[in-house]
Amino acid sequence: MAESSVSPTPLLKDELDIVIPTIRNLDFLEMWRPFFQPYHLIIVQDGDPSKTIKVPEGFDYELYNRNDINRILGSKASCISFKDSACRCFGYLVSKKKYIYTIDDDCFVAKDPSGKDINALEQHIKNLLSPSTPFFFNTLYDPYRNGADFVRGYPFSLREGVPTAVSHGLWLNIPDYDAPTQLVKPLERNTRYVDAVMTIPKSTLFPMCGMNLGFNRELIGPAMYFGLMGDGQPIGRYDDMWAGWCTKVICDHLGFGVKTGLPYIYHSKASNPFVNLKKEYKGIYWQEELIPFFQSAVLPKDCNTVQKCYIELSKQVRAKLGKVDEYFIKLADAMVTWIDAWDELNSSGNSGELANGAAK
Amino acid sequence: MAESSVSPTPLLKDELDIVIPTIRNLDFLEMWRPFFQPYHLIIVQDGDPSKTIKVPEGFDYELYNRNDINRILGSKASCISFKDSACRCFGYLVSKKKYIYTIDDDCFVAKDPSGKDINALEQHIKNLLSPSTPFFFNTLYDPYRNGADFVRGYPFSLREGVPTAVSHGLWLNIPDYDAPTQLVKPLERNTRYVDAVMTIPKSTLFPMCGMNLGFNRELIGPAMYFGLMGDGQPIGRYDDMWAGWCTKVICDHLGFGVKTGLPYIYHSKASNPFVNLKKEYKGIYWQEELIPFFQSAVLPKDCNTVQKCYIELSKQVRAKLGKVDEYFIKLADAMVTWIDAWDELNSSGNSGELANGAAK
Repeated sequence: MAESSVSPTPLLKDELDIVIPTIRNLDFLEMWRPFFQPYHLIIVQDGDPSKTIKVPEGFDYELYNRNDINRILGSKASCISFKDSACRCFGYLVSKKKYIYTIDDDCFVAKDPSGKDINALEQHIKNLLSPSTPFFFNTLYDPYRNGADFVRGYPFSLREGVPTAVSHGLWLNIPDYDAPTQLVKPLERNTRYVDAVMTIPKSTLFPMCGMNLGFNRELIGPAMYFGLMGDGQPIGRYDDMWAGWCTKVICDHLGFGVKTGLPYIYHSKASNPFVNLKKEYKGIYWQEELIPFFQSAVLPKDCNTVQKCYIELSKQVRAKLGKVDEYFIKLADAMVTWIDAWDELNSSGNSGELANGAAK
Repeated sequence: MAESSVSPTPLLKDELDIVIPTIRNLDFLEMWRPFFQPYHLIIVQDGDPSKTIKVPEGFDYELYNRNDINRILGSKASCISFKDSACRCFGYLVSKKKYIYTIDDDCFVAKDPSGKDINALEQHIKNLLSPSTPFFFNTLYDPYRNGADFVRGYPFSLREGVPTAVSHGLWLNIPDYDAPTQLVKPLERNTRYVDAVMTIPKSTLFPMCGMNLGFNRELIGPAMYFGLMGDGQPIGRYDDMWAGWCTKVICDHLGFGVKTGLPYIYHSKASNPFVNLKKEYKGIYWQEELIPFFQSAVLPKDCNTVQKCYIELSKQVRAKLGKVDEYFIKLADAMVTWIDAWDELNSSGNSGELANGAAK
């Protein structure tokens, strides 16, 4: 009887940071308290740095506003987007943990079909701690889940799987639609709970949404750059897509896996489709060239670190996508700056100094 | 009120055959009566042709035993397996319909989580009549399902999809495990109902199970050859796998889609794992060479029909897998014989004569 009153230590308690980009008070954390409170939060405040963001009592967090970003990164701060949730990747840069979970502040705790609150973070951790199977499709989905396995005909040599770098979670209620689809189907809600986790096969691209996303920062962190979006840029709402395409190409090259499916969060409100259309419209036609670019991107064998892969990808972006629009030249530059910043902040020498910089 | 008493015409009633390989009386059809009775059945009797297979009253069917197969195909009957459910592909050969649904006689009607009987055939038809999306992954699964769509970041040029050639259904209760997994996990049951249909991405192979399978015979029929298994052959239980690998490579080449997921059937009893191990053991090590072979198989551009693709594949099997075992030389020959038989029975001239040959 005594045992049941002892709370188990939450998984990866000291190895995971929760990164939240926001422009408002973080009341949404109240609902997440039972699941998030044991973890450290990195809050990236977007917009006016003079505004005070209220964080509910009892959470362990550090908060960075634009002034902090500029102070810490100096001239390299140019690679961090402003007035766009793409700024969240600054949190990945300053984290010193092995794992990251990032969530939007309009995402609430969803319920599973039995009515139970879903601990999204716990499911992401399970996804990240079990292997992926990118080389062959398993028809019963994640073979490492309880009650599942590899089916007949699955090669035994592939059953060990590969390390999982990314866990992409989904959304009940408001689906992650683009502006045209939002406009055409304003009332569509996602009510289908699909009880599956699966590996996205090698060489297959997917639209990675940053709303409810976990990843292994040690394995893939430097590829999780959310690009140049928002203030002063010709495009928005493609930050996570950009990161997803780059990440998937690099995961495929380095032999890491990407999982999608569970966990669901409850996405509370649709963003304004007219505003979104303005942000997206260039992306909607650019992506017709971006997808073939990423589908055919090949990284040379000597690219054996994420950083090397990412720099190589930036060169290909410059050479091939620079012709699509000069924006991609700027983006290629920013990709290089991002890696410079990553290496600067993540060399062993200055990590302590930095982490203390803005700790509250 | 009057309207509700009128049964709607079942989907594709005159365009789909149900193919059932069996060695026993087909009592299992009683449970399927509400869903299958409107359709025509093609029963392929395996084993002793002098045995009488009882079919429940009221079903419209034709039945072929080994004598019929030999009479209809003559020397080409050598490509049809004996004492193995691979013989089912004879039913695909003699069908004159556009669509095939094939099911094993130990598969019963499953229930969805609400307790409702699942009309597996209807779901297969829905899968086959809606497009597939093999070129890019949609994280909310089949975008053509009610309540779903393409998510943000999905290229608009790919939203029309491609024709669906195959619908691969799953199994509750006894999962489709190989003999080693059966031996290790004798009590494992699949109880997870995953409410999803999805396209298997281009260039990704999967283990296709023949237990609960629908396909468009016009699009992909000649590739649905279940190989040489059972009596006189060194291998069994790889018939559907072989068909699945060939089919997927050809679908990828011709631009057709393969869907997997719903519908579930209830798989009633596990086959004997010791018997299965004997049938499978060569396959278990051969597949380590077969998978890389199919993963790297390239079909030339002028292979613009399924038949041409299949003949080309047979040549590659002979050239590359012939070195693995002489069995694959025999199999390559049988692949050619199969296409000869297909073309003979499916030329416009002799279809009527044939169909009447064994009709009951």
